[in-house]
Amino acid sequence: MDMTDYMQTIGRQARTASRAMARADSATRNRALLLIADAIERDAAQLVEANARDLDAARANGLAPALLDRLALSDKAIATMIDGLRQIVALPDPIGEISNMKFRPSGIQVGQMRVPLGVIGIIYEARPNVTVDAAGLCIKSGNAAILRGGSEAIHCNRALAALVAEGLRAASLPEQGVQVVETTDRAAVGALITMPEYVDVIVPRGGKGLIARLMEEATVPMIKHLDGICHVYIDAKADIAKALPIAMNAKTHRYGTCNTMETLLVARAIAPAVLPQLAALYATKEVELRADPEALAILQGYPHLAPASEEDWSTEYLAPILAVKIVAGIDEAIEHINRYSSKHTEAIVTEDYTDAMRFLREVDSASVMVNASTRFADGFEYGLGAEIGISNDKLHARGPVGLEGLTSLKYIVFGHGEIRT
Amino acid sequence: MDMTDYMQTIGRQARTASRAMARADSATRNRALLLIADAIERDAAQLVEANARDLDAARANGLAPALLDRLALSDKAIATMIDGLRQIVALPDPIGEISNMKFRPSGIQVGQMRVPLGVIGIIYEARPNVTVDAAGLCIKSGNAAILRGGSEAIHCNRALAALVAEGLRAASLPEQGVQVVETTDRAAVGALITMPEYVDVIVPRGGKGLIARLMEEATVPMIKHLDGICHVYIDAKADIAKALPIAMNAKTHRYGTCNTMETLLVARAIAPAVLPQLAALYATKEVELRADPEALAILQGYPHLAPASEEDWSTEYLAPILAVKIVAGIDEAIEHINRYSSKHTEAIVTEDYTDAMRFLREVDSASVMVNASTRFADGFEYGLGAEIGISNDKLHARGPVGLEGLTSLKYIVFGHGEIRT
Repeated sequence: MDMTDYMQTIGRQARTASRAMARADSATRNRALLLIADAIERDAAQLVEANARDLDAARANGLAPALLDRLALSDKAIATMIDGLRQIVALPDPIGEISNMKFRPSGIQVGQMRVPLGVIGIIYEARPNVTVDAAGLCIKSGNAAILRGGSEAIHCNRALAALVAEGLRAASLPEQGVQVVETTDRAAVGALITMPEYVDVIVPRGGKGLIARLMEEATVPMIKHLDGICHVYIDAKADIAKALPIAMNAKTHRYGTCNTMETLLVARAIAPAVLPQLAALYATKEVELRADPEALAILQGYPHLAPASEEDWSTEYLAPILAVKIVAGIDEAIEHINRYSSKHTEAIVTEDYTDAMRFLREVDSASVMVNASTRFADGFEYGLGAEIGISNDKLHARGPVGLEGLTSLKYIVFGHGEIRT
Repeated sequence: MDMTDYMQTIGRQARTASRAMARADSATRNRALLLIADAIERDAAQLVEANARDLDAARANGLAPALLDRLALSDKAIATMIDGLRQIVALPDPIGEISNMKFRPSGIQVGQMRVPLGVIGIIYEARPNVTVDAAGLCIKSGNAAILRGGSEAIHCNRALAALVAEGLRAASLPEQGVQVVETTDRAAVGALITMPEYVDVIVPRGGKGLIARLMEEATVPMIKHLDGICHVYIDAKADIAKALPIAMNAKTHRYGTCNTMETLLVARAIAPAVLPQLAALYATKEVELRADPEALAILQGYPHLAPASEEDWSTEYLAPILAVKIVAGIDEAIEHINRYSSKHTEAIVTEDYTDAMRFLREVDSASVMVNASTRFADGFEYGLGAEIGISNDKLHARGPVGLEGLTSLKYIVFGHGEIRT
């Protein structure tokens, strides 16, 4: 099989199917989602069986335990998938919304209509739940999808693909509205990201390495998430009763997530008061603190203390390690963040109105918070109802990306025979 | 001078200046715009002189008359530039707008704030007015700009750059908020479009050839405008009294613009009634009609008639030539448009409610109109107040791009000490 031909065929089919997906009314798209959920519920046993074959092969190939964990499809994981689909049904339909219709001096009335992007390509690791999640979000938003999951999940993904196709068909939508790439050949990814004629946007879900590699080759635009080097800045005017739980939560609630704090900045004036109390909290979780010389002096005696190197300011630890730096105040904090941050999420803890407003406006990141933990940067916590990813980009979608990120606004004009003179 | 070093320096300076530009309040940015307008007014004579040097060199190099025309800076063109800046001052400030702030069950309040993109790179032909236009839009939207105009305009662009810098300085904004690339070396463009660390978006303004070339090399995202293969579809239920002026205006109002109709589709049922009348109008402008066999039969005897080839359906004539095709009805019209259109602007002429709604929803173009001339697809006609370009893309900005297209929405969170549990 020639991989380029194979992927071109998939692309062409997706483009054709995308027209019917975009035309379908809300009820039809929701019906498809419910039918898919029902089919998964009915065939749960077969899915577990297909997953077992994937797991056996993965174990034989020596896949790392963490990856085996993500690959595994428990009964509970299947129930979560089904729930997820039914929750997507309950979300409002983003498609067709008309906004800002205004009359112009010429007599025409102009505004915008929200429409699907067309064809979404999703590239992800060997996590079968993403197959259903991504299919659900694309169907809901009237898009066609091409799903390329990690090859270790191939049996399970094939089984899921059949159930998604069954649901689409039963709702009178084209089966090819969602296509799962049924090959483990890596060249398929290379083809997928270079077919702008068939694919409108690529959403990669995976590690930084995968995404950096895709960025080099892709000619299709991407909604991409690189790393999360998030900061909390404890301002001189911070309420320490808020600063302590926020700095603790932002670091230790979960270590492996992209909205976890990696660097703590503390205003010089408040550092002697706040740092020792905070250290007592971090000690309970054995968090290693990598401190600049000033913080080092304040923290001396802390059992897991090390001096910070220049590299620490731009490291995403994803571990119980925290870089700590003393800054003169809001100016130095903003300067440090805009220099070292990955532009994901930053928070200030302060009771000072002007500092809060300056931080919100001047910090150039996708999410900027006052007196809240960075851990809130998440599509569900923001009320998007669903999340296809988090974008580090400034164009199109920035921060948590929900259904709206899979849509576009086109201009519509209601005329009455107007011509331009 | 090493071109990469030179451009990296410009990029670094722009990134630094962009922070001050973003921080500046509305009054400061408007003051800079007014001061630049005043400086141009004061030095109009010197600008004409610098332009004369460019024109002499261009004539000596045998530049085509149409390009000489665009390069020329008349007193009237200078007055228009000055007016343009003052009009931009009068537009509402897009920056800082906060929208959709909503409380979430966790207690945080989440919404979005409109912020500048950062650094905008603009690549354009030898048209000095674009230098001032683009600088004005970037200053108004709180961005830093790097402007790279066609080398034939270098003397005039240098003179304009000095006046822009003077205005920025006098308003206490960094001079490097707007930098004009002062070299005619084409390698500067290659460097500009491959510095994503310093440039957030490239707006190319020029022919399809320039943009296609940039697309191949660019690693910075682009807001780009390719071609305009626009359609008017005269539906079976069209009001002929509207169809005739719209089809006439869309083709003949101006031939060289991207929103000019290039293909006319006519429903079979109305073709015998509408085409002969339309031909009588087109005859007054000697428009050549390239018709499919059915239209050919109806139009026989028209003095400028030729059979259409497959290529005609995807040609942007920019000339008094029109492709004409008979279609069965709305389905075939939509299918033809979605296949051949450049996704710029399409219009339906109809009195039928369902056909109008289907056309608006199902035609996958940046602007879709009912009963109006495609010539209205324009930032000024749409009420954007200004236009940096027209985008054929679906992501970020689609259709006419005004100040909002030079901004981004970041999430902001107002908390009260909330942590995630």
